[in-house]
Amino acid sequence: MTELEQIESALLSYLPSDNCTEKQLIESMKYSLMAGGKRIRPRLILEFCKLCGGDTEAAMPFACAIEMIHTYSLIHDDLPCMDDDDLRRGKPSNHKKFGEDIALLAGDALQSLAFSVMLSPKSVESVGADAAAKSAFVLAECCGANGMVGGQTIDLEYENQKASLKILNEMHQKKTGALINAACQIGCIIAGASKEKIQAAGKYAEKIGLAFQIIDDILDVTSDEETFGKPVGSDLQNNKSTFVTSIGIEKCRELASVLTKEAIDCLKEFQGDTEELINIANSLLIRKN
Amino acid sequence: MTELEQIESALLSYLPSDNCTEKQLIESMKYSLMAGGKRIRPRLILEFCKLCGGDTEAAMPFACAIEMIHTYSLIHDDLPCMDDDDLRRGKPSNHKKFGEDIALLAGDALQSLAFSVMLSPKSVESVGADAAAKSAFVLAECCGANGMVGGQTIDLEYENQKASLKILNEMHQKKTGALINAACQIGCIIAGASKEKIQAAGKYAEKIGLAFQIIDDILDVTSDEETFGKPVGSDLQNNKSTFVTSIGIEKCRELASVLTKEAIDCLKEFQGDTEELINIANSLLIRKN
Repeated sequence: MTELEQIESALLSYLPSDNCTEKQLIESMKYSLMAGGKRIRPRLILEFCKLCGGDTEAAMPFACAIEMIHTYSLIHDDLPCMDDDDLRRGKPSNHKKFGEDIALLAGDALQSLAFSVMLSPKSVESVGADAAAKSAFVLAECCGANGMVGGQTIDLEYENQKASLKILNEMHQKKTGALINAACQIGCIIAGASKEKIQAAGKYAEKIGLAFQIIDDILDVTSDEETFGKPVGSDLQNNKSTFVTSIGIEKCRELASVLTKEAIDCLKEFQGDTEELINIANSLLIRKN
Repeated sequence: MTELEQIESALLSYLPSDNCTEKQLIESMKYSLMAGGKRIRPRLILEFCKLCGGDTEAAMPFACAIEMIHTYSLIHDDLPCMDDDDLRRGKPSNHKKFGEDIALLAGDALQSLAFSVMLSPKSVESVGADAAAKSAFVLAECCGANGMVGGQTIDLEYENQKASLKILNEMHQKKTGALINAACQIGCIIAGASKEKIQAAGKYAEKIGLAFQIIDDILDVTSDEETFGKPVGSDLQNNKSTFVTSIGIEKCRELASVLTKEAIDCLKEFQGDTEELINIANSLLIRKN
Protein backbone atom coordinates (compact mmCIF):
# COMPACT_ATOMS: atom_id res chain seq x y z
CA MET A 1 0.00 0.00 0.00
CA THR A 2 1.22 3.50 -0.76
CA GLU A 3 1.25 6.05 2.05
CA LEU A 4 -1.82 7.72 0.55
CA GLU A 5 -3.68 4.40 0.50
CA GLN A 6 -2.69 3.80 4.11
CA ILE A 7 -4.14 7.18 5.06
CA GLU A 8 -7.40 6.49 3.19
CA SER A 9 -7.77 3.11 4.80
CA ALA A 10 -7.03 4.47 8.30
CA LEU A 11 -9.51 7.33 7.86
CA LEU A 12 -12.22 4.85 6.94
CA SER A 13 -11.37 2.64 9.91
CA TYR A 14 -11.81 5.50 12.40
CA LEU A 15 -15.35 6.36 11.28
CA PRO A 16 -18.02 4.99 13.64
CA SER A 17 -20.08 2.10 12.28
CA ASP A 18 -23.22 3.28 10.50
CA ASN A 19 -25.17 0.41 12.03
CA CYS A 20 -26.88 2.77 14.48
CA THR A 21 -29.87 5.07 14.78
CA GLU A 22 -27.79 8.10 13.74
CA LYS A 23 -26.86 6.36 10.46
CA GLN A 24 -27.45 9.49 8.38
CA LEU A 25 -24.93 11.47 10.41
CA ILE A 26 -22.23 8.85 9.93
CA GLU A 27 -22.96 8.73 6.18
CA SER A 28 -22.63 12.49 5.97
CA MET A 29 -19.31 12.42 7.87
CA LYS A 30 -18.06 9.67 5.58
CA TYR A 31 -19.21 11.48 2.43
CA SER A 32 -16.93 14.44 3.10
CA LEU A 33 -14.10 12.67 4.91
CA MET A 34 -13.66 10.08 2.13
CA ALA A 35 -14.05 12.55 -0.76
CA GLY A 36 -10.40 12.32 -1.69
CA GLY A 37 -8.20 15.38 -1.75
CA LYS A 38 -4.46 15.62 -1.49
CA ARG A 39 -4.27 14.67 2.21
CA ILE A 40 -1.44 17.19 2.57
CA ARG A 41 -1.82 17.61 6.35
CA PRO A 42 -1.74 13.88 7.23
CA ARG A 43 1.20 13.38 4.88
CA LEU A 44 3.07 16.21 6.61
CA ILE A 45 2.56 14.54 9.99
CA LEU A 46 3.78 11.19 8.72
CA GLU A 47 6.76 12.65 6.86
CA PHE A 48 8.02 14.75 9.77
CA CYS A 49 7.49 11.83 12.12
CA LYS A 50 9.54 9.58 9.81
CA LEU A 51 12.22 12.23 9.34
CA CYS A 52 12.65 12.52 13.12
CA GLY A 53 12.92 8.75 13.50
CA GLY A 54 9.39 8.15 14.80
CA ASP A 55 6.93 5.34 14.13
CA THR A 56 4.48 6.32 11.39
CA GLU A 57 1.97 3.71 12.49
CA ALA A 58 1.74 5.37 15.90
CA ALA A 59 1.38 8.73 14.13
CA MET A 60 -1.56 7.57 12.01
CA PRO A 61 -4.35 8.52 14.49
CA PHE A 62 -2.94 12.05 14.56
CA ALA A 63 -2.64 12.17 10.77
CA CYS A 64 -6.29 11.17 10.48
CA ALA A 65 -7.37 13.57 13.23
CA ILE A 66 -5.98 16.59 11.43
CA GLU A 67 -7.76 15.56 8.23
CA MET A 68 -11.01 15.29 10.23
CA ILE A 69 -10.51 18.84 11.48
CA HIS A 70 -9.75 20.04 7.95
CA THR A 71 -12.85 18.26 6.61
CA TYR A 72 -15.13 19.68 9.31
CA SER A 73 -13.91 23.18 8.45
CA LEU A 74 -14.69 22.65 4.76
CA ILE A 75 -18.23 21.40 5.53
CA HIS A 76 -18.97 24.41 7.76
CA ASP A 77 -17.27 26.79 5.30
CA ASP A 78 -19.58 25.69 2.49
CA LEU A 79 -22.80 26.29 4.49
CA PRO A 80 -25.21 28.96 3.19
CA CYS A 81 -24.48 31.25 6.17
CA MET A 82 -20.76 31.10 5.28
CA ASP A 83 -19.44 30.85 1.69
CA ASP A 84 -22.63 29.21 0.39
CA ASP A 85 -20.77 26.91 -2.00
CA ASP A 86 -22.72 24.17 -3.77
CA LEU A 87 -19.67 22.35 -5.01
CA ARG A 88 -16.67 20.82 -3.23
CA ARG A 89 -14.05 18.63 -4.85
CA GLY A 90 -16.27 18.39 -7.91
CA LYS A 91 -19.23 16.97 -5.95
CA PRO A 92 -22.25 18.54 -4.27
CA SER A 93 -21.15 20.06 -0.97
CA ASN A 94 -22.25 18.25 2.19
CA HIS A 95 -25.34 20.37 2.91
CA LYS A 96 -26.48 20.08 -0.71
CA LYS A 97 -26.44 16.31 -0.30
CA PHE A 98 -27.62 15.89 3.33
CA GLY A 99 -29.28 19.16 4.26
CA GLU A 100 -27.93 22.02 6.37
CA ASP A 101 -28.81 20.51 9.73
CA ILE A 102 -27.00 17.23 9.15
CA ALA A 103 -24.03 19.02 7.55
CA LEU A 104 -23.69 21.26 10.60
CA LEU A 105 -23.78 18.23 12.92
CA ALA A 106 -21.41 16.18 10.73
CA GLY A 107 -18.85 18.99 11.05
CA ASP A 108 -19.34 19.14 14.80
CA ALA A 109 -18.97 15.37 15.15
CA LEU A 110 -15.85 15.27 12.97
CA GLN A 111 -14.20 17.76 15.31
CA SER A 112 -15.04 15.56 18.33
CA LEU A 113 -13.91 12.46 16.48
CA ALA A 114 -10.50 14.02 15.84
CA PHE A 115 -9.89 14.33 19.58
CA SER A 116 -11.37 10.89 20.27
CA VAL A 117 -9.00 9.28 17.82
CA MET A 118 -5.90 11.06 19.13
CA LEU A 119 -6.70 10.32 22.77
CA SER A 120 -8.07 6.79 22.48
CA PRO A 121 -6.53 4.24 24.86
CA LYS A 122 -4.83 2.58 21.88
CA SER A 123 -3.30 5.83 20.63
CA VAL A 124 -2.16 6.82 24.12
CA GLU A 125 -0.54 3.43 24.55
CA SER A 126 1.35 3.79 21.24
CA VAL A 127 2.80 7.28 21.66
CA GLY A 128 2.55 7.79 25.43
CA ALA A 129 0.09 10.01 27.26
CA ASP A 130 2.45 13.00 27.25
CA ALA A 131 2.96 13.09 23.47
CA ALA A 132 -0.73 12.36 22.86
CA ALA A 133 -1.86 15.19 25.15
CA LYS A 134 0.73 17.60 23.76
CA SER A 135 -0.18 16.83 20.14
CA ALA A 136 -3.91 17.15 20.79
CA PHE A 137 -3.25 20.44 22.57
CA VAL A 138 -1.29 21.80 19.59
CA LEU A 139 -4.12 20.80 17.26
CA ALA A 140 -6.80 22.31 19.52
CA GLU A 141 -4.92 25.60 19.69
CA CYS A 142 -4.24 25.71 15.96
CA CYS A 143 -7.83 25.00 14.96
CA GLY A 144 -9.50 27.27 17.54
CA ALA A 145 -10.35 30.92 18.15
CA ASN A 146 -6.82 32.23 17.62
CA GLY A 147 -6.10 29.71 14.86
CA MET A 148 -8.17 28.39 11.98
CA VAL A 149 -11.56 29.61 13.21
CA GLY A 150 -10.03 33.00 14.04
CA GLY A 151 -8.76 33.19 10.46
CA GLN A 152 -12.22 32.46 9.11
CA THR A 153 -13.61 35.24 11.29
CA ILE A 154 -11.10 37.72 9.91
CA ASP A 155 -11.99 36.52 6.41
CA LEU A 156 -15.68 37.27 7.06
CA GLU A 157 -14.94 40.62 8.59
CA TYR A 158 -12.96 41.81 5.57
CA GLU A 159 -15.36 40.44 2.99
CA ASN A 160 -16.55 43.84 1.89
CA GLN A 161 -13.69 46.07 2.95
CA LYS A 162 -10.12 46.37 1.81
CA ALA A 163 -7.66 44.37 3.92
CA SER A 164 -4.05 45.51 4.29
CA LEU A 165 -1.28 43.08 3.37
CA LYS A 166 -0.61 42.69 7.11
CA ILE A 167 -4.22 41.63 7.78
CA LEU A 168 -4.18 39.34 4.73
CA ASN A 169 -1.05 37.69 6.09
CA GLU A 170 -2.53 37.25 9.55
CA MET A 171 -5.78 35.90 8.13
CA HIS A 172 -4.06 33.27 6.01
CA GLN A 173 -1.53 32.36 8.66
CA LYS A 174 -4.50 31.52 10.86
CA LYS A 175 -7.02 30.24 8.35
CA THR A 176 -4.77 27.87 6.39
CA GLY A 177 -1.34 28.17 7.98
CA ALA A 178 -2.23 27.18 11.53
CA LEU A 179 -3.39 23.68 10.61
CA ILE A 180 -0.39 23.06 8.34
CA ASN A 181 1.79 24.28 11.19
CA ALA A 182 0.08 21.89 13.61
CA ALA A 183 0.69 19.00 11.20
CA CYS A 184 4.42 19.63 10.90
CA GLN A 185 4.86 20.15 14.65
CA ILE A 186 2.82 17.10 15.65
CA GLY A 187 4.88 14.84 13.40
CA CYS A 188 7.99 15.97 15.29
CA ILE A 189 6.35 15.78 18.74
CA ILE A 190 5.27 12.18 18.23
CA ALA A 191 8.82 11.26 17.23
CA GLY A 192 10.16 12.97 20.37
CA ALA A 193 12.18 15.50 18.33
CA SER A 194 14.17 18.39 19.80
CA LYS A 195 12.76 21.92 20.21
CA GLU A 196 15.02 23.11 17.38
CA LYS A 197 13.54 20.57 15.02
CA ILE A 198 9.97 21.39 16.05
CA GLN A 199 10.79 25.05 15.36
CA ALA A 200 12.30 24.33 11.94
CA ALA A 201 9.24 22.26 11.04
CA GLY A 202 7.08 25.21 12.08
CA LYS A 203 9.02 27.55 9.78
CA TYR A 204 8.75 25.15 6.84
CA ALA A 205 5.01 25.00 7.56
CA GLU A 206 4.61 28.76 7.71
CA LYS A 207 6.25 29.20 4.33
CA ILE A 208 4.45 26.45 2.44
CA GLY A 209 1.18 27.54 4.07
CA LEU A 210 1.56 31.05 2.75
CA ALA A 211 2.64 29.81 -0.69
CA PHE A 212 -0.41 27.53 -0.69
CA GLN A 213 -2.73 30.47 -0.09
CA ILE A 214 -1.10 32.68 -2.69
CA ILE A 215 -1.51 29.92 -5.28
CA ASP A 216 -5.15 29.55 -4.19
CA ASP A 217 -5.73 33.24 -4.86
CA ILE A 218 -4.08 32.92 -8.28
CA LEU A 219 -6.16 29.86 -9.20
CA ASP A 220 -9.34 31.66 -8.20
CA VAL A 221 -8.74 34.09 -11.09
CA THR A 222 -6.94 31.89 -13.62
CA SER A 223 -8.52 28.43 -13.32
CA ASP A 224 -11.89 27.01 -14.36
CA GLU A 225 -14.43 25.28 -12.14
CA GLU A 226 -13.80 21.80 -13.55
CA THR A 227 -10.03 21.89 -12.99
CA PHE A 228 -10.18 23.73 -9.65
CA GLY A 229 -12.98 21.46 -8.33
CA LYS A 230 -14.80 24.43 -6.80
CA PRO A 231 -16.32 27.67 -8.10
CA VAL A 232 -13.79 30.19 -9.43
CA GLY A 233 -13.96 33.96 -9.47
CA SER A 234 -15.73 33.97 -6.12
CA ASP A 235 -13.14 36.27 -4.54
CA LEU A 236 -13.69 38.97 -7.15
CA GLN A 237 -17.44 38.47 -7.00
CA ASN A 238 -17.41 38.84 -3.20
CA ASN A 239 -15.20 41.91 -3.48
CA LYS A 240 -12.55 40.18 -1.40
CA SER A 241 -9.02 41.41 -0.83
CA THR A 242 -6.56 38.72 -1.92
CA PHE A 243 -2.85 38.54 -2.58
CA VAL A 244 -3.68 38.95 -6.27
CA THR A 245 -5.71 42.14 -5.75
CA SER A 246 -2.98 43.41 -3.40
CA ILE A 247 0.23 42.82 -5.37
CA GLY A 248 -0.84 41.41 -8.76
CA ILE A 249 -0.45 37.96 -10.32
CA GLU A 250 3.18 38.25 -11.40
CA LYS A 251 4.47 39.29 -7.98
CA CYS A 252 2.31 36.55 -6.46
CA ARG A 253 3.97 33.89 -8.60
CA GLU A 254 7.41 35.19 -7.66
CA LEU A 255 6.58 35.34 -3.95
CA ALA A 256 5.17 31.80 -3.92
CA SER A 257 8.31 30.58 -5.63
CA VAL A 258 10.64 32.31 -3.13
CA LEU A 259 8.60 31.00 -0.17
CA THR A 260 8.82 27.45 -1.51
CA LYS A 261 12.62 27.71 -1.80
CA GLU A 262 12.83 29.11 1.74
CA ALA A 263 10.63 26.29 3.04
CA ILE A 264 12.92 23.71 1.48
CA ASP A 265 15.91 25.46 3.09
CA CYS A 266 14.35 24.95 6.53
CA LEU A 267 14.69 21.20 6.03
CA LYS A 268 18.48 21.50 6.40
CA GLU A 269 17.93 21.29 10.18
CA PHE A 270 17.08 17.61 9.68
CA GLN A 271 19.36 14.70 8.96
CA GLY A 272 17.68 12.06 6.80
CA ASP A 273 15.57 11.78 3.70
CA THR A 274 13.69 15.03 3.04
CA GLU A 275 12.75 14.19 -0.54
CA GLU A 276 9.04 13.75 0.11
CA LEU A 277 8.81 17.04 2.03
CA ILE A 278 10.57 18.79 -0.86
CA ASN A 279 8.08 17.17 -3.23
CA ILE A 280 5.13 18.36 -1.14
CA ALA A 281 6.43 21.94 -1.13
CA ASN A 282 7.00 21.88 -4.90
CA SER A 283 3.69 20.19 -5.66
CA LEU A 284 1.79 22.95 -3.81
CA LEU A 285 3.54 25.51 -5.99
CA ILE A 286 2.57 23.93 -9.32
CA ARG A 287 -0.84 22.57 -8.32
CA LYS A 288 -3.87 23.13 -10.51
CA ASN A 289 -6.51 22.35 -7.89
CA MET B 1 -16.22 32.63 46.73
CA THR B 2 -18.98 30.06 46.34
CA GLU B 3 -18.34 27.12 44.05
CA LEU B 4 -20.60 28.68 41.42
CA GLU B 5 -18.63 31.93 41.55
CA GLN B 6 -15.40 29.97 41.20
CA ILE B 7 -16.77 28.30 38.07
CA GLU B 8 -17.89 31.63 36.58
CA SER B 9 -14.52 33.21 37.26
CA ALA B 10 -12.61 30.25 35.82
CA LEU B 11 -14.77 30.20 32.68
CA LEU B 12 -14.00 33.86 32.09
CA SER B 13 -10.28 33.30 32.64
CA TYR B 14 -10.11 30.61 29.95
CA LEU B 15 -11.59 32.79 27.20
CA PRO B 16 -8.95 34.16 24.83
CA SER B 17 -8.27 37.90 25.12
CA ASP B 18 -10.45 39.96 22.80
CA ASN B 19 -7.50 42.21 22.04
CA CYS B 20 -7.08 40.63 18.60
CA THR B 21 -8.33 40.92 15.03
CA GLU B 22 -10.97 38.23 15.63
CA LYS B 23 -12.47 40.30 18.48
CA GLN B 24 -16.03 39.69 17.33
CA LEU B 25 -15.62 35.93 17.57
CA ILE B 26 -14.33 36.13 21.14
CA GLU B 27 -17.22 38.42 22.09
CA SER B 28 -19.68 35.98 20.64
CA MET B 29 -18.10 33.06 22.54
CA LYS B 30 -18.16 35.10 25.74
CA TYR B 31 -21.79 36.18 25.22
CA SER B 32 -23.04 32.61 25.34
CA LEU B 33 -20.47 31.10 27.71
CA MET B 34 -21.04 33.76 30.36
CA ALA B 35 -24.85 33.86 30.02
CA GLY B 36 -25.37 32.18 33.36
CA GLY B 37 -27.24 28.92 33.65
CA LYS B 38 -27.13 26.35 36.37
CA ARG B 39 -23.64 25.08 35.53
CA ILE B 40 -24.85 21.58 36.41
CA ARG B 41 -22.16 19.75 34.44
CA PRO B 42 -19.16 21.61 35.91
CA ARG B 43 -20.64 21.22 39.39
CA LEU B 44 -21.00 17.48 38.84
CA ILE B 45 -17.31 17.22 37.90
CA LEU B 46 -16.22 19.17 40.96
CA GLU B 47 -18.54 17.30 43.35
CA PHE B 48 -17.52 13.83 42.19
CA CYS B 49 -13.88 14.85 42.25
CA LYS B 50 -14.27 16.09 45.83
CA LEU B 51 -16.23 12.99 46.85
CA CYS B 52 -13.43 10.75 45.57
CA GLY B 53 -10.78 12.74 47.43
CA GLY B 54 -9.46 14.67 44.42
CA ASP B 55 -8.30 18.27 44.09
CA THR B 56 -11.11 20.48 42.78
CA GLU B 57 -8.67 23.15 41.61
CA ALA B 58 -7.03 20.64 39.30
CA ALA B 59 -10.48 19.59 38.10
CA MET B 60 -11.51 23.14 37.18
CA PRO B 61 -10.20 23.10 33.55
CA PHE B 62 -12.30 19.99 32.95
CA ALA B 63 -15.34 21.53 34.64
CA CYS B 64 -15.02 24.54 32.35
CA ALA B 65 -14.37 22.41 29.26
CA ILE B 66 -17.62 20.53 29.64
CA GLU B 67 -19.53 23.79 29.98
CA MET B 68 -17.86 25.01 26.77
CA ILE B 69 -19.07 21.89 24.98
CA HIS B 70 -22.56 22.36 26.40
CA THR B 71 -22.57 26.02 25.33
CA TYR B 72 -21.38 25.27 21.79
CA SER B 73 -24.19 22.73 21.44
CA LEU B 74 -26.77 25.31 22.52
CA ILE B 75 -25.47 27.90 20.03
CA HIS B 76 -25.60 25.42 17.14
CA ASP B 77 -28.97 24.04 18.32
CA ASP B 78 -30.53 27.51 18.14
CA LEU B 79 -29.39 28.16 14.54
CA PRO B 80 -32.10 28.61 11.88
CA CYS B 81 -31.17 25.32 10.18
CA MET B 82 -31.71 23.53 13.53
CA ASP B 83 -34.34 24.57 16.11
CA ASP B 84 -34.41 28.19 14.90
CA ASP B 85 -34.83 29.63 18.40
CA ASP B 86 -34.57 33.39 18.87
CA LEU B 87 -34.35 33.22 22.63
CA ARG B 88 -31.94 31.47 25.01
CA ARG B 89 -31.82 31.99 28.75
CA GLY B 90 -34.12 35.00 28.33
CA LYS B 91 -31.75 36.76 25.90
CA PRO B 92 -31.47 36.84 22.10
CA SER B 93 -29.79 33.65 20.94
CA ASN B 94 -26.22 33.93 19.70
CA HIS B 95 -27.00 34.20 15.97
CA LYS B 96 -29.70 36.81 16.65
CA LYS B 97 -27.04 38.93 18.30
CA PHE B 98 -23.95 38.21 16.15
CA GLY B 99 -25.27 36.74 12.90
CA GLU B 100 -25.36 33.12 11.80
CA ASP B 101 -21.81 33.01 10.49
CA ILE B 102 -20.20 34.22 13.71
CA ALA B 103 -22.51 32.02 15.82
CA LEU B 104 -21.48 28.96 13.82
CA LEU B 105 -17.81 29.81 14.27
CA ALA B 106 -18.21 30.64 17.97
CA GLY B 107 -19.65 27.17 18.52
CA ASP B 108 -16.80 25.59 16.59
CA ALA B 109 -14.19 27.56 18.53
CA LEU B 110 -15.79 26.71 21.89
CA GLN B 111 -15.45 23.03 21.08
CA SER B 112 -11.74 23.48 20.28
CA LEU B 113 -11.25 25.61 23.39
CA ALA B 114 -12.65 22.82 25.57
CA PHE B 115 -9.90 20.47 24.42
CA SER B 116 -7.26 23.21 24.62
CA VAL B 117 -8.14 23.92 28.23
CA MET B 118 -8.15 20.25 29.30
CA LEU B 119 -4.85 19.49 27.59
CA SER B 120 -2.92 22.69 28.32
CA PRO B 121 0.56 22.18 29.80
CA LYS B 122 -0.74 23.58 33.11
CA SER B 123 -3.68 21.20 33.25
CA VAL B 124 -1.54 18.22 32.30
CA GLU B 125 0.93 19.14 35.02
CA SER B 126 -1.86 19.30 37.63
CA VAL B 127 -3.66 16.05 36.95
CA GLY B 128 -1.03 14.07 35.02
CA ALA B 129 -1.01 13.34 31.30
CA ASP B 130 -2.82 10.02 31.75
CA ALA B 131 -5.83 11.45 33.59
CA ALA B 132 -5.94 14.48 31.27
CA ALA B 133 -5.91 12.33 28.13
CA LYS B 134 -8.44 9.87 29.56
CA SER B 135 -10.82 12.63 30.64
CA ALA B 136 -10.58 14.44 27.30
CA PHE B 137 -11.21 11.12 25.54
CA VAL B 138 -14.35 10.48 27.63
CA LEU B 139 -15.61 13.97 26.80
CA ALA B 140 -14.83 13.60 23.07
CA GLU B 141 -16.68 10.30 22.91
CA CYS B 142 -19.66 11.59 24.87
CA CYS B 143 -20.09 14.73 22.78
CA GLY B 144 -19.51 13.10 19.38
CA ALA B 145 -21.29 11.07 16.72
CA ASN B 146 -22.46 8.32 19.08
CA GLY B 147 -23.05 10.76 21.93
CA MET B 148 -24.53 14.25 22.07
CA VAL B 149 -24.38 14.99 18.33
CA GLY B 150 -25.79 11.54 17.60
CA GLY B 151 -28.70 12.33 19.92
CA GLN B 152 -29.37 15.57 18.08
CA THR B 153 -29.41 13.68 14.80
CA ILE B 154 -31.98 11.21 16.14
CA ASP B 155 -34.00 14.18 17.40
CA LEU B 156 -34.03 15.70 13.88
CA GLU B 157 -34.89 12.42 12.25
CA TYR B 158 -37.96 11.88 14.44
CA GLU B 159 -39.18 15.46 14.23
CA ASN B 160 -42.17 14.59 12.12
CA GLN B 161 -42.66 10.93 12.85
CA LYS B 162 -43.68 9.07 15.99
CA ALA B 163 -40.74 7.80 18.03
CA SER B 164 -41.09 4.69 20.19
CA LEU B 165 -40.25 4.93 23.90
CA LYS B 166 -37.06 2.96 23.11
CA ILE B 167 -35.95 5.54 20.52
CA LEU B 168 -36.91 8.41 22.84
CA ASN B 169 -34.78 6.86 25.56
CA GLU B 170 -31.81 6.39 23.23
CA MET B 171 -32.15 9.91 21.89
CA HIS B 172 -32.15 11.51 25.33
CA GLN B 173 -29.47 9.24 26.72
CA LYS B 174 -27.27 10.54 23.92
CA LYS B 175 -28.49 14.12 23.52
CA THR B 176 -28.52 15.13 27.20
CA GLY B 177 -27.40 12.07 29.13
CA ALA B 178 -24.01 11.55 27.50
CA LEU B 179 -22.60 14.89 28.62
CA ILE B 180 -23.94 14.50 32.17
CA ASN B 181 -22.42 11.05 32.19
CA ALA B 182 -19.08 12.42 31.03
CA ALA B 183 -19.16 15.00 33.82
CA CYS B 184 -19.72 12.44 36.59
CA GLN B 185 -17.10 10.05 35.20
CA ILE B 186 -14.46 12.75 34.65
CA GLY B 187 -14.80 13.95 38.25
CA CYS B 188 -13.94 10.43 39.41
CA ILE B 189 -11.16 9.91 36.84
CA ILE B 190 -9.35 13.07 37.92
CA ALA B 191 -9.49 11.94 41.54
CA GLY B 192 -8.07 8.54 40.53
CA ALA B 193 -11.20 6.70 41.72
CA SER B 194 -11.80 2.95 41.32
CA LYS B 195 -13.68 1.42 38.39
CA GLU B 196 -16.60 0.63 40.71
CA LYS B 197 -16.91 4.26 41.70
CA ILE B 198 -16.68 5.47 38.08
CA GLN B 199 -19.47 3.01 37.27
CA ALA B 200 -21.67 4.15 40.14
CA ALA B 201 -21.16 7.77 39.06
CA GLY B 202 -22.20 6.75 35.55
CA LYS B 203 -25.42 5.19 36.87
CA TYR B 204 -26.24 8.27 38.95
CA ALA B 205 -25.67 10.34 35.80
CA GLU B 206 -27.89 8.16 33.64
CA LYS B 207 -30.78 8.48 36.06
CA ILE B 208 -30.58 12.22 36.68
CA GLY B 209 -30.04 12.76 32.96
CA LEU B 210 -33.25 10.98 32.10
CA ALA B 211 -35.16 12.73 34.91
CA PHE B 212 -33.80 16.04 33.59
CA GLN B 213 -35.18 15.37 30.13
CA ILE B 214 -38.57 14.21 31.38
CA ILE B 215 -38.90 17.43 33.39
CA ASP B 216 -37.89 19.38 30.28
CA ASP B 217 -40.69 17.76 28.32
CA ILE B 218 -43.16 18.57 31.14
CA LEU B 219 -42.02 22.21 31.32
CA ASP B 220 -42.42 22.58 27.56
CA VAL B 221 -46.18 22.06 28.01
CA THR B 222 -46.76 23.53 31.49
CA SER B 223 -44.41 26.54 31.76
CA ASP B 224 -44.42 29.99 30.20
CA GLU B 225 -41.66 31.58 28.14
CA GLU B 226 -40.60 34.03 30.85
CA THR B 227 -40.14 31.37 33.55
CA PHE B 228 -38.66 28.72 31.22
CA GLY B 229 -36.28 31.23 29.60
CA LYS B 230 -36.95 29.78 26.14
CA PRO B 231 -40.02 29.33 23.92
CA VAL B 232 -42.56 26.82 25.24
CA GLY B 233 -44.94 24.60 23.32
CA SER B 234 -42.33 24.09 20.60
CA ASP B 235 -42.47 20.28 20.94
CA LEU B 236 -46.21 20.18 20.25
CA GLN B 237 -45.86 22.75 17.49
CA ASN B 238 -43.12 20.71 15.84
CA ASN B 239 -45.19 17.55 16.23
CA LYS B 240 -42.42 16.00 18.31
CA SER B 241 -42.67 12.77 20.26
CA THR B 242 -41.79 13.46 23.90
CA PHE B 243 -42.14 11.58 27.18
CA VAL B 244 -45.31 13.61 27.77
CA THR B 245 -46.92 12.63 24.47
CA SER B 246 -45.81 9.01 25.08
CA ILE B 247 -46.93 8.35 28.67
CA GLY B 248 -48.73 11.52 29.81
CA ILE B 249 -47.82 14.17 32.39
CA GLU B 250 -48.78 12.25 35.53
CA LYS B 251 -46.71 9.18 34.69
CA CYS B 252 -43.86 11.50 33.69
CA ARG B 253 -43.87 13.15 37.12
CA GLU B 254 -43.87 9.75 38.81
CA LEU B 255 -41.05 8.42 36.64
CA ALA B 256 -38.87 11.48 37.21
CA SER B 257 -39.40 11.10 40.93
CA VAL B 258 -38.46 7.41 40.94
CA LEU B 259 -35.36 8.06 38.81
CA THR B 260 -34.21 10.79 41.20
CA LYS B 261 -34.54 8.41 44.17
CA GLU B 262 -32.62 5.72 42.28
CA ALA B 263 -29.90 8.22 41.38
CA ILE B 264 -29.49 9.15 45.03
CA ASP B 265 -29.26 5.45 45.91
CA CYS B 266 -26.26 5.09 43.57
CA LEU B 267 -24.34 7.45 45.83
CA LYS B 268 -24.17 4.73 48.54
CA GLU B 269 -21.08 3.42 46.70
CA PHE B 270 -19.21 6.47 47.98
CA GLN B 271 -17.92 7.24 51.45
CA GLY B 272 -18.03 10.94 52.25
CA ASP B 273 -20.33 13.91 51.93
CA THR B 274 -22.88 13.35 49.16
CA GLU B 275 -25.19 16.17 50.23
CA GLU B 276 -24.48 18.42 47.26
CA LEU B 277 -25.01 15.61 44.75
CA ILE B 278 -28.32 14.79 46.46
CA ASN B 279 -29.21 18.47 46.20
CA ILE B 280 -28.38 18.57 42.49
CA ALA B 281 -30.56 15.51 41.80
CA ASN B 282 -33.46 17.00 43.76
CA SER B 283 -33.07 20.46 42.24
CA LEU B 284 -33.36 19.04 38.72
CA LEU B 285 -36.63 17.40 39.75
CA ILE B 286 -38.28 20.58 41.05
CA ARG B 287 -36.73 23.05 38.62
CA LYS B 288 -38.86 25.61 36.82
CA ASN B 289 -36.37 26.48 34.07
